[in-house]
Amino acid sequence: MSEAVEARAETLLGGRVRIDQTGAGLRATIDPVLLAAAVPAEPGEAVLEAGTGIGTASLCLLARVPGARAVGIERDPLQAARAEANAALNGWSDRFAAIAGDITDRATERAAARHGPYAHAMANPPWFSSGNEPAEPGRRLAKHAGEADLGHWVGVLARRVAPRGSVTLILPPALLPQALSGFAAAGIGSPTLFPLWPRAGREAKRLLLSGRKGGRSPCRVLAGLVLHREEGGFTAAAEAVLRHGEQLPLL
Amino acid sequence: MSEAVEARAETLLGGRVRIDQTGAGLRATIDPVLLAAAVPAEPGEAVLEAGTGIGTASLCLLARVPGARAVGIERDPLQAARAEANAALNGWSDRFAAIAGDITDRATERAAARHGPYAHAMANPPWFSSGNEPAEPGRRLAKHAGEADLGHWVGVLARRVAPRGSVTLILPPALLPQALSGFAAAGIGSPTLFPLWPRAGREAKRLLLSGRKGGRSPCRVLAGLVLHREEGGFTAAAEAVLRHGEQLPLL
Repeated sequence: MSEAVEARAETLLGGRVRIDQTGAGLRATIDPVLLAAAVPAEPGEAVLEAGTGIGTASLCLLARVPGARAVGIERDPLQAARAEANAALNGWSDRFAAIAGDITDRATERAAARHGPYAHAMANPPWFSSGNEPAEPGRRLAKHAGEADLGHWVGVLARRVAPRGSVTLILPPALLPQALSGFAAAGIGSPTLFPLWPRAGREAKRLLLSGRKGGRSPCRVLAGLVLHREEGGFTAAAEAVLRHGEQLPLL
Repeated sequence: MSEAVEARAETLLGGRVRIDQTGAGLRATIDPVLLAAAVPAEPGEAVLEAGTGIGTASLCLLARVPGARAVGIERDPLQAARAEANAALNGWSDRFAAIAGDITDRATERAAARHGPYAHAMANPPWFSSGNEPAEPGRRLAKHAGEADLGHWVGVLARRVAPRGSVTLILPPALLPQALSGFAAAGIGSPTLFPLWPRAGREAKRLLLSGRKGGRSPCRVLAGLVLHREEGGFTAAAEAVLRHGEQLPLL
């Protein structure tokens, strides 16, 4: 499949966020929107995002949380530049910075540290379908050069957040065991699982997983969110998040 | 609280199983019934249960699967004897054997091996509430002497099942990270999570977790089962399992 480069502006969160999807590969999914909704950021806090792509999750978070600040790490310099352009498109250049660099490089982590400390961290990490093919062509780059595994991503986010700070991931269920062991290894406790059900009664295709640095509460499995109605279209609960900018209550 | 010893006969699975609850501590929960419903045993296969108590899960499995055979390990000799008495009460003495012994003892595992090989294994392992108090007084013994952790239980079950055999646990969400890492360490792959929701929209209090020895499929999170209706009483789907003996479709 050839990846046509075309200009595609789109609004998210009921018009609160404008995103230019140019060059983003396949059409944007709702994953980064749901990820941002799950981060328990308070007004004025700073959030670190790993693998920010064109900035969607970070910008959705800025739209929801007044005065918050976000820093996104992105190894594709072109996408990092587009993330900053998208921040400018919303008038949030002073609230967002993109760091172009591989998360496995210490230089990238040092650059992120200079913008910190962070109250929260989040990621929609790259992942592959069972056939070892990248699930989203636009995300191929992250895997090919860095060979960064999920545990490494979690480790960097955990080091950069303040004590009691949260780390939140959106993942396919295939990565749940690796994510939970990564949390434990990195000292991210109180893991809370929030399944995203494509329809009522169907198995989850995505999970939100949140935890706190130094947290000591037991693992919880919340009821999660049903995304689509049986007859098509989003459920009212999904609309509240995707269109009206509500927070998802994980932690 | 004193644990009164009283004779209490009870039927499960709509009368298919008779259990004498004498000396079992608190009233039996539905956990072992749900555990047995999640084991994908075929007629004639052998199943190993760790921590069988008075035999409830094993006997429920025998009731559902024609010609199946079960062996239960139980470290309290009194409960092990009661498990065998309960098997006799149902006329299944030739289909069930209890092994009185600590699962951490190699002698216990050798005794279990002599009754094998097993196509499947299951456990409702002992666990503790966050206050380090045993959640069920009748299950205190298992923890106090053996100090067996969940990883150890999974390791024994994994060694005893045949290749491609299943291992199924019922757990509080607090034990999910430990159970998943135990599965990975013991070579139990294709982990499938099946949450048990007390009511629709409430967080799970119990999870079923199943996997296969040598399985290589990705982790899945199934929709699970809602146990109670908002207005009280079991849901029709829960009744189908608890009263009509239906299997839960995990693997």
